[in-house]
Amino acid sequence: MQTFSVYELNEFDRDSPAFLEFSSQTVNRVNPLTGAHVHALGDQVPFTNKLYDGSLKLRLGITAGICLLMKNYPGMGTPEMKRQQFFTPDRYETLMTWYFGDFGHISGQGPFINYQDTLMTITGGVGFFREARGVVRLHNISPFKFFYTFTLTGIPQLPKHLTAEVVPPSEDAAAVPEAVACDPRFTLRNFSN
Amino acid sequence: MQTFSVYELNEFDRDSPAFLEFSSQTVNRVNPLTGAHVHALGDQVPFTNKLYDGSLKLRLGITAGICLLMKNYPGMGTPEMKRQQFFTPDRYETLMTWYFGDFGHISGQGPFINYQDTLMTITGGVGFFREARGVVRLHNISPFKFFYTFTLTGIPQLPKHLTAEVVPPSEDAAAVPEAVACDPRFTLRNFSN
Amino acid sequence: MQTFSVYELNEFDRDSPAFLEFSSQTVNRVNPLTGAHVHALGDQVPFTNKLYDGSLKLRLGITAGICLLMKNYPGMGTPEMKRQQFFTPDRYETLMTWYFGDFGHISGQGPFINYQDTLMTITGGVGFFREARGVVRLHNISPFKFFYTFTLTGIPQLPKHLTAEVVPPSEDAAAVPEAVACDPRFTLRNFSN
Repeated sequence: MQTFSVYELNEFDRDSPAFLEFSSQTVNRVNPLTGAHVHALGDQVPFTNKLYDGSLKLRLGITAGICLLMKNYPGMGTPEMKRQQFFTPDRYETLMTWYFGDFGHISGQGPFINYQDTLMTITGGVGFFREARGVVRLHNISPFKFFYTFTLTGIPQLPKHLTAEVVPPSEDAAAVPEAVACDPRFTLRNFSN
Repeated sequence: MQTFSVYELNEFDRDSPAFLEFSSQTVNRVNPLTGAHVHALGDQVPFTNKLYDGSLKLRLGITAGICLLMKNYPGMGTPEMKRQQFFTPDRYETLMTWYFGDFGHISGQGPFINYQDTLMTITGGVGFFREARGVVRLHNISPFKFFYTFTLTGIPQLPKHLTAEVVPPSEDAAAVPEAVACDPRFTLRNFSN
Repeated sequence: MQTFSVYELNEFDRDSPAFLEFSSQTVNRVNPLTGAHVHALGDQVPFTNKLYDGSLKLRLGITAGICLLMKNYPGMGTPEMKRQQFFTPDRYETLMTWYFGDFGHISGQGPFINYQDTLMTITGGVGFFREARGVVRLHNISPFKFFYTFTLTGIPQLPKHLTAEVVPPSEDAAAVPEAVACDPRFTLRNFSN
């Protein structure tokens, strides 16, 4: 069993996410005080963001997937979360893939609850991750920053690229400028983009 | 190989399902006699319902997922099915997760054909079901009641909570009132909700 | 490890695909020169097409799934691709199942990039493919013809139905008329339809 962590960061340059307001509930589609759409079953959030290693010094690739809104839980979440712009306490069902350039990719399925950590199952992988099994812990930092910790079996020994010292997750987490700029010394080979 | 059964019941208190009428076929979008939307490729049905054990005496948690309508098969289904309100003979492609509170969860993918039993594959699991592999048989009782039988490998011995005597599926199937009321003696610990 | 190839052909008789133009990007939703919708994150393409063996002499069943558009990559693709009607260079995230009648089915998840080959992971299977693990190479012939090569472990020895000599993929690829007509000598038993 091997463990490593990665960051998914939305740098607002991929037109992601697309918030599709398909909810069909019959009441409260709109907040009467603010006019805002109320999240509910039926809403969908396709997304594709940047993927960095846990040290935030290596651009790995991208994420790609969809969050299907299952239920809104009014009032849930910490005071810190409630201060964040765009935060609403929601439970999603998620299908996604993490792309690591020439290294391959990992696919997963399961819950995303934005006011608590969740575990998704690993459904399989390709390349280095070809026989991957296990789970991934999803830690929501903000609506635009996510921290994942994979615990996998069935893969060869992790390369040092994926086991550098991890920067603890915080709202300030950001990749180093060279990685953001895709400097070749700060990217995986043929990093997914 | 171990087997157990669960019930998914729609108790109409979760605003589920959301029937999203996205079908884009060029003809027959509407039944000329009734004005009703005709199901077709493109329609989507996100859902989240209650999950009970096979004895209908234990609230386990919830289901969460989406059915993607692939094709409508006019005329298919038994006379009993055709008597049910809202029944139309459809084939869906489904992605879903069954949530069992502190026990963990199981994810699956595959066909849902509402006029015959189908087998979906188990794509993985978390917690007790962490190494789960196998299949689940989906038996459609009505548009609001479903009976699943899992046949799994890779998990520890099933606890007695999941192996109580099963109530045979019928249109009258309903959880005992204490389980519906979430009486702690009739729920899994931290049952998903 | 065993390998076999299949063809997915759109014969335009299943109302497939449904191209759902949900993209929510704020600019360039429409090409100013042609008025055409510009593909972007949020667009979805549910589909269900015919499945034939690699020799194009045996109707196996159908495919069923959805492609979620992640990003459009203007300019990508070979001159041959750019000549094809409806071709636009897109990256999708895909969830799908290949149905083989009484033989069972295989489910997968991962990337579809229509201007290069991709590898998707196998998330599981049912029937003959019950313990299937591995990957599938997706080769895009045209927007309506696809060639898949599975490399699987965990399954019994492949039957001769799936290992007939493969017709190399080309834009002219078409099933033999008897298979298109579902002549019983040219179909799998209870082929999915």
